[in-house]
Amino acid sequence: MSYILYYSPGAASMAVHWMLLELGLEFETRLIDIDTGAQHTAEYLKLNPSGRVPTLVIDGVPRTESAALLMLLAERHPDGGFAPRADSPERAEWFEMMIYLANSVLPAMRNWFYAAEDGDPADAASVKAFSRRQIEGAMERLDERLADGRAYLVGDRLSTVDFLAIMLMRWTRNMPRPAISWANLATYIQRLRDMPTFRELNVREGLTEWQN
Amino acid sequence: MSYILYYSPGAASMAVHWMLLELGLEFETRLIDIDTGAQHTAEYLKLNPSGRVPTLVIDGVPRTESAALLMLLAERHPDGGFAPRADSPERAEWFEMMIYLANSVLPAMRNWFYAAEDGDPADAASVKAFSRRQIEGAMERLDERLADGRAYLVGDRLSTVDFLAIMLMRWTRNMPRPAISWANLATYIQRLRDMPTFRELNVREGLTEWQN
Repeated sequence: MSYILYYSPGAASMAVHWMLLELGLEFETRLIDIDTGAQHTAEYLKLNPSGRVPTLVIDGVPRTESAALLMLLAERHPDGGFAPRADSPERAEWFEMMIYLANSVLPAMRNWFYAAEDGDPADAASVKAFSRRQIEGAMERLDERLADGRAYLVGDRLSTVDFLAIMLMRWTRNMPRPAISWANLATYIQRLRDMPTFRELNVREGLTEWQN
Repeated sequence: MSYILYYSPGAASMAVHWMLLELGLEFETRLIDIDTGAQHTAEYLKLNPSGRVPTLVIDGVPRTESAALLMLLAERHPDGGFAPRADSPERAEWFEMMIYLANSVLPAMRNWFYAAEDGDPADAASVKAFSRRQIEGAMERLDERLADGRAYLVGDRLSTVDFLAIMLMRWTRNMPRPAISWANLATYIQRLRDMPTFRELNVREGLTEWQN
């Protein structure tokens, strides 16, 4: 199996990059710096027509959508244990939480950041206000979920849900109310940021903010 | 295995209801009519704290998120063939398309319909304009995908992606530009609406619009 990850520092590729490190797989990376517009080049659009990161080239075939890539990697590498097994009682919860993050939190974050770019700039302030309410509602819900002191969002071990959740929580760091301002989320974030692979991920992506 | 589906006619429960019929499983249904606010009763909120449909009670445990339920049902009933097998070349594409519909089309539709309810009504017109652009962009992309004449969105057979896509396309029927106004989507929609289980689904949910 060969993997080539097209990533931009701190972008939606980050969860996939982290999971590849945590799995201890061999993989190559290609920097597509979205701050310089590298995602809009003709060459990159051939791999990913929507001009977003990540793209993960798997055995020569480009694949997209971060949540889908996390689920696929969990299935291809079951020994990592990053998804409950199909016959496990946590399996339904894992699907539910992956989809919840993918269809509630992730699009609201996209809309918060790209309101002016994806739509009419005249609508952007309203779209941002609407998105902020959705994001804070989701963080509230995740905080409640962690109120029983559990270490991870699904079951009693690290899963793809945590890679995705931490990336999304990181994105709120400069929002009016960052995820880390919720008490249970703060504990959760600090625990996961302590992982050696999270520190390694930040070094590899050249990131310095939002670390313990 | 026992299934009890809490549904509202034509709502996000519809794709799951259709899949249960197509799988030929025994299941019970409970009507939660969202037009009368039945999703906000204390009794229902115990099952589904976000007050949405569907809830699928699986062997006594309530589960939510339509896209997650479709994926889970495909896994629990592999003989139905509604997801490519894990070792199949279409598997990655199936994850990608499920997540694309779940994180792009579905939330944009939610925002279109619930802009005033989920946010400040003063922002609703802007949110709707923004969402409309996202939805039409997605329909354009799905139409291009079907331009090669393929019968289904992933591979050469019906999958969970089609149950979800048809439900989302149905939701556009009274929008300024309905999905059926794209040529390839029209062919696709008409083919799938001809399925006996789609007709049965409409009878069971008491729906009369958007049929062949």
